[in-house]
Amino acid sequence: MRIAQLSETTGVPIPSIKYYLREGLLHTGERTARNQAEYDDSHVRRLRLIRALIDAGGLSIAATRKLLVILDDDSLPIDLALGHAISAALKPPANTESPQMEWARSRVDALLDERDWLVERDTDKTEALASALAALSQLKSVGAEELLKLHLPHVEALAIEEIQWALKHEDKDSIVESAVVGTFLGGAIFNALRLLAHENLARRTAQPTEESE
Amino acid sequence: MRIAQLSETTGVPIPSIKYYLREGLLHTGERTARNQAEYDDSHVRRLRLIRALIDAGGLSIAATRKLLVILDDDSLPIDLALGHAISAALKPPANTESPQMEWARSRVDALLDERDWLVERDTDKTEALASALAALSQLKSVGAEELLKLHLPHVEALAIEEIQWALKHEDKDSIVESAVVGTFLGGAIFNALRLLAHENLARRTAQPTEESE
Repeated sequence: MRIAQLSETTGVPIPSIKYYLREGLLHTGERTARNQAEYDDSHVRRLRLIRALIDAGGLSIAATRKLLVILDDDSLPIDLALGHAISAALKPPANTESPQMEWARSRVDALLDERDWLVERDTDKTEALASALAALSQLKSVGAEELLKLHLPHVEALAIEEIQWALKHEDKDSIVESAVVGTFLGGAIFNALRLLAHENLARRTAQPTEESE
Repeated sequence: MRIAQLSETTGVPIPSIKYYLREGLLHTGERTARNQAEYDDSHVRRLRLIRALIDAGGLSIAATRKLLVILDDDSLPIDLALGHAISAALKPPANTESPQMEWARSRVDALLDERDWLVERDTDKTEALASALAALSQLKSVGAEELLKLHLPHVEALAIEEIQWALKHEDKDSIVESAVVGTFLGGAIFNALRLLAHENLARRTAQPTEESE
């Protein structure tokens, strides 16, 4: 198909398609004339992935490109490629040194040992967790240990279901796509649902008092 | 205490404290001399909240200020203040109009009806959910309905525990602090744990093949 039809099929405006081509997010089509290229289903699919990551996942162009380059590298086994791709897309937390961060890093190490989680240490992911725990440990009313204990069982149950769901797909492209999108859009969906659930519960808790007045 | 001691107690550098004072994030101390002010525990506590939201929650100065202004407004009931504060801090999603967004918005409405969730419609929270669902609905290999079904039970169970945990605190300040911090840092912790759990499961799934070679 020509670029106009690619734009129509995906709903992505032509200038944006050209921009993704220039930025290396989208692979070039097959040149059929001096000023004309032919696109196929692989372009439709990639464009939808790009828009999902940028629009709803909130990734930058640069983060999206880094992630796609890693995913397209067939020399890496899927699990490593996914790990690298997801780390590449995460904002690295500010590298802060403090007694709280020291405590938090060793707490994260201990947690990974306790749960026997097979993950790389000292990455953006462990630093992100340590930085949240360090901040929590500074607050008077909020216990970091309590929040960890509250979240862990839900995280473990959800993650198993998510991975099973991603692996259920048949071809490698679909597994990779569902894992990456599941991570970012799944995160966005989970978080939006969680804030809505909080609002519902907060209102329902507040309601009986209003009614009894 | 003087500003130097406030800085020492909290680990926040004096220039940052002055910046938060100028930006209206931190309330001014009691002026004791022309060039000198006295700070107390309320400043320590507020500074820690500010750093938690900015460093680990990833909020901007502007979003943090908006959130604090609403929280400090005693004329609002707690539940409404929390709802507004959390909405204020969320990045509003790009206002996109598309057939997918139309579908996604009505799917969100139907979902809220089904679950009988008492929440405001057409807010940043419902738009964030709709925009993730719209992006998902465009992808070949990933079903929006499947992901919703996967996340909902975990969200509902976690949210109840989180609200119970926040309400368990005794004074209003602690309830507000734990709810706000629990939302943002809890979100950061949950997401970091979830990515680590994914990595662990992906590696364990990949491992048997390697060993059998």
